[in-house]
Amino acid sequence: MPAEATPSFLWVPELAGEPGVVELSPEESHYLAHVCRARPGARVLATDGRGRLAELRIVSLGRRARAEVGRIERAERRRRAWVWCGAPEGRRADWLVEKLAELGIEAWQPLECERARWRNTQGAIERWRRLAVAALRQSRRRFLMEIRPPVTLEEAAGTIPEGSLRWLADAAGGRGGAPPAGAGCAIGVVGPAAGFSAGERGRLAALGFQTMCLADARLRSETAAVAWAAWWAGGEV
Amino acid sequence: MPAEATPSFLWVPELAGEPGVVELSPEESHYLAHVCRARPGARVLATDGRGRLAELRIVSLGRRARAEVGRIERAERRRRAWVWCGAPEGRRADWLVEKLAELGIEAWQPLECERARWRNTQGAIERWRRLAVAALRQSRRRFLMEIRPPVTLEEAAGTIPEGSLRWLADAAGGRGGAPPAGAGCAIGVVGPAAGFSAGERGRLAALGFQTMCLADARLRSETAAVAWAAWWAGGEV
Repeated sequence: MPAEATPSFLWVPELAGEPGVVELSPEESHYLAHVCRARPGARVLATDGRGRLAELRIVSLGRRARAEVGRIERAERRRRAWVWCGAPEGRRADWLVEKLAELGIEAWQPLECERARWRNTQGAIERWRRLAVAALRQSRRRFLMEIRPPVTLEEAAGTIPEGSLRWLADAAGGRGGAPPAGAGCAIGVVGPAAGFSAGERGRLAALGFQTMCLADARLRSETAAVAWAAWWAGGEV
Repeated sequence: MPAEATPSFLWVPELAGEPGVVELSPEESHYLAHVCRARPGARVLATDGRGRLAELRIVSLGRRARAEVGRIERAERRRRAWVWCGAPEGRRADWLVEKLAELGIEAWQPLECERARWRNTQGAIERWRRLAVAALRQSRRRFLMEIRPPVTLEEAAGTIPEGSLRWLADAAGGRGGAPPAGAGCAIGVVGPAAGFSAGERGRLAALGFQTMCLADARLRSETAAVAWAAWWAGGEV
């Protein structure tokens, strides 16, 4: 669809549940004025990243733009998926985060593994949050992908929702077949560039993760994570 | 698997069908000495990118390394997929090419579309070929992804193999379900950032491309292309 046919799409976490006037953050005000090139009076769409979608009419631009909130509706998330991933090489996690957010993953969970640790995490988390916001605008989603700080496998295990479906990317696993349909949470786990240790693999098996082969050759960690997310994203809503 | 457990993997298109001595290209010689840090006497694996896999023993390093070819075996490609894609924004095609090659796509076909043209094609094609070689080494594949120069939809139509399965990424399409299994060629088509025109969509429908929805929101062109390739790559061999 040509870009001019669709209104600009903003992330406004300050959106309240009722009509009124909302003040946008400096980042979103800059995006509105300099990327969308909106003028006062323009109508745009905005989400709070938690399911709300509102029509806004721009009242004023500037460091903190102001907008009048019109019709608001709210949706619940229908499908949920988390990606747990060991550290890939270099800065490859950046595009991984962008792609997972576009594909509609609910939460990105970096995993500290025996063979690979995440480095410079504080800067990375802030960058990932900006990438997730950019992907939300781009794909016009109502839910902002959650960026979690790196944790160990044991800590991550404590967050698994009951009844969730669990997959571990593994060249020796079975083929995935059709992706899961309907509600419920799916978790996809991918090892770091150097792979999971035998101990970690045993722990994942004990946690109910079933192995799944994503391709007929070995994939980089970030490729495997995006491939799993793409497989999941193709499931029936 | 830890990197030290697996021998280095080279792309040696000069591999003949019989044992003997092969001289490596300057690029592969450099990769062998400076990335793999191989020494004379080391054993490595090499493919010609067309299905052959050989064991090599390094005889000498230098600008053109020499290696003794040991056991050779040859495989036929079992599954085939092509990706046709309109131009995404900026340099986003670079990682797209890397990911398609990792996922085992046979041919990458950039499409010239009514709403988007490929630019700086000559430099891009050379860069894409290098990326495809790097991905082949990384994923230890026997088949090098073919990089085709951009063509129009009409020119691409003339290359469709008889009996191939054909999909067009489209938010209004059906969900893909399980990927195709077994032999045969699958073609996935993705529009440029600005989308296909109505005329192009009509032509694709007439050519037998069925629409397929890859996610519940709009995806960037390069994300859609990788998502389609990942879906295909998960199919039974």
